[in-house]
Amino acid sequence: MSKTAAVKTIRWVGGIDGYIEIIDQRRLPGEYKLIRCVRVKQLYSAIKTLAVRGAPAIGVAGAFGAALALKGISPKASPKEVLAVLKLGCKYLEGSRPTAVNLQWALDRIEKCAKGFAKRNPAAKATQLRSVILAQAKAIFDEDVRMCLKIGRNGAKLVKNGFSILTHCNAGALATAGQGTALSVLYEAKKQGKRFKVYVDETRPLLQGARLTAWELKQAGIDVTVICDDMAGALMAQGKIDMVITGADRIAANGDAANKIGTYSLSVLAKAHPPRRAAAGEVSPLGSKAERPAARADRIPFYIAAPSSTFDLSFVAQRRKDLKTKTGKDIPIEQRPAEEVRFCGSKQTAPDGVKIYNPAFDVTPAKNITAIITERGVIEKPTVRKIATHLA
Amino acid sequence: MSKTAAVKTIRWVGGIDGYIEIIDQRRLPGEYKLIRCVRVKQLYSAIKTLAVRGAPAIGVAGAFGAALALKGISPKASPKEVLAVLKLGCKYLEGSRPTAVNLQWALDRIEKCAKGFAKRNPAAKATQLRSVILAQAKAIFDEDVRMCLKIGRNGAKLVKNGFSILTHCNAGALATAGQGTALSVLYEAKKQGKRFKVYVDETRPLLQGARLTAWELKQAGIDVTVICDDMAGALMAQGKIDMVITGADRIAANGDAANKIGTYSLSVLAKAHPPRRAAAGEVSPLGSKAERPAARADRIPFYIAAPSSTFDLSFVAQRRKDLKTKTGKDIPIEQRPAEEVRFCGSKQTAPDGVKIYNPAFDVTPAKNITAIITERGVIEKPTVRKIATHLA
Repeated sequence: MSKTAAVKTIRWVGGIDGYIEIIDQRRLPGEYKLIRCVRVKQLYSAIKTLAVRGAPAIGVAGAFGAALALKGISPKASPKEVLAVLKLGCKYLEGSRPTAVNLQWALDRIEKCAKGFAKRNPAAKATQLRSVILAQAKAIFDEDVRMCLKIGRNGAKLVKNGFSILTHCNAGALATAGQGTALSVLYEAKKQGKRFKVYVDETRPLLQGARLTAWELKQAGIDVTVICDDMAGALMAQGKIDMVITGADRIAANGDAANKIGTYSLSVLAKAHPPRRAAAGEVSPLGSKAERPAARADRIPFYIAAPSSTFDLSFVAQRRKDLKTKTGKDIPIEQRPAEEVRFCGSKQTAPDGVKIYNPAFDVTPAKNITAIITERGVIEKPTVRKIATHLA
Repeated sequence: MSKTAAVKTIRWVGGIDGYIEIIDQRRLPGEYKLIRCVRVKQLYSAIKTLAVRGAPAIGVAGAFGAALALKGISPKASPKEVLAVLKLGCKYLEGSRPTAVNLQWALDRIEKCAKGFAKRNPAAKATQLRSVILAQAKAIFDEDVRMCLKIGRNGAKLVKNGFSILTHCNAGALATAGQGTALSVLYEAKKQGKRFKVYVDETRPLLQGARLTAWELKQAGIDVTVICDDMAGALMAQGKIDMVITGADRIAANGDAANKIGTYSLSVLAKAHPPRRAAAGEVSPLGSKAERPAARADRIPFYIAAPSSTFDLSFVAQRRKDLKTKTGKDIPIEQRPAEEVRFCGSKQTAPDGVKIYNPAFDVTPAKNITAIITERGVIEKPTVRKIATHLA
């Protein structure tokens, strides 16, 4: 196992009256500090202020948060009363980050599970229902750990010996309960004995690349170099990049993917540059032997690695799976506070009174994505049909 | 006149025993502080640490620096001795920033002027020679002020009413002795009564866009919004950008332009997106009436605004003008300290022991440049021939 197995981004401590413990990612890399969320408001604040972040980790946090929301409830409360409090808690937590679909997905799943149990057991005690909810949250946690491993194994085949790989933001152990999504691909490639180096965009304004990805990759003994976001194009022009891989926060039915702001620019830049390996006459990561050289050498491959729960599926009420978000245009983009850009730490970098535009995400159209890697496999050149088949 | 006329980025105070006064740009926007360079070592350090920056301003600083280098010299020194000290001083100052050609250009011009005067006046006193050198430096300063105005007037016609303009780094009053290059275009457009808004990339790692450009545009009453470097692509995809304009630090004979790291990425992104105005059916800034709509709407125009001294001309020894840098590949790219990226102010943003790649510049190929604006006019779709004609 890689050293990152030791990174415990989020965990539940104790029984139904326990609490959530998270690594305070706002303090990394300078300080490693764990914080406890004993009340749901603390978790809401931790999610909102990015003490815990990353779509899968937020999903797990939300699930544990649902368990936390029921902490004050009377042991004599009826299942109906418990479900009412749960609904309020879930509604509240959903508002903490609007773009990451995993949060809503996890909360929906908890609610559905609780409703099902209450229906089957109309005389259930409040503590029974709470145990079921906590068990469901722990199941989501465990699935996340396994999901990360599977994504890593599915994606590792795309990494060739000697590759130079660019990533953006943090889609690693710090973004999940397990060992990450995009970074899991790298951890698995390393386990397979492949040598490669990683460039990581620092990812303004909150510098998750510089602070978090560089920190975790270094811990895992991977060769990592931090660059500023405005340097990626120059690296590609110098032929220094073989592939780009990022995570995603929400993927639409057609494959358009919302991820950290800056991901879209990378996808356009990757499309405009030939890959180093292909340029040197080697076979591109996804190129089958039958593929013609001209088709292989045209661009740097751009991969998204994300759990299938990132696809915008609705589990609410309906039995059938229903893709709510048809294209990237339907994805809500969270606007974050101007002060994140105006300051870097305590240092003011932009003058007072000057406007700031600070969207948290952008949408990369499916046509810019070489493949989407999930725990189920790899969707090459994603389309509505391929995605539906993949998720069926 | 715009309010920026009050921004005195650099000036010489006093006679031949005077000193250089500069705005300490490392402290902006938080603090406005002037610093005095009374010795050439102080100026070297000010240039190297970016207290004064911007290719034209560095040129002027270098010219004044040559005058400063002669301060300690004996009044009884022969012209030969003065020239020897001058040569050493110029050589020393040249090393402070290797990419900006204006510095070398200004120092070459000072040396050439001094040599000419000494040749014509073999019995000249040291103070006489020093006066001639200071007068030449002041001439370079005055020319820079006029050059800025002319660039602004030449470029202002490209700005249309209602435009939304993206710029990178700082090519403004703070980068010149006058009112800037790229930003002079905006100041002149404003004087002409045009309404427009400006997005400015914060420009990591040293944040010249957020700190300096936003500060000066706000002072001039121009509508300015700061974005992070990774947001430019998303803005273009939303159809929010009508034109991109930046400065340049060195331009090769074929039009390849070295400018602040990140400029290249913007040129690729601009090429990949249609402009907002053209998309709405309006005539593109450079589109003549005869031009077909298909040719106009294909991309966001990308302009470089720079004095003709930015072209890599050699004035050394030869009488004829000789373009030393043939293409962008011949331009040396300064690598700056890792600590600029590892820290933001006093806050550490990337972990210790992690590698950092920190080139100060990248090279935008001529094919990505819609036009180069100089004090002499506008070079559309620059080529070797057009540039040679423009400079003749």
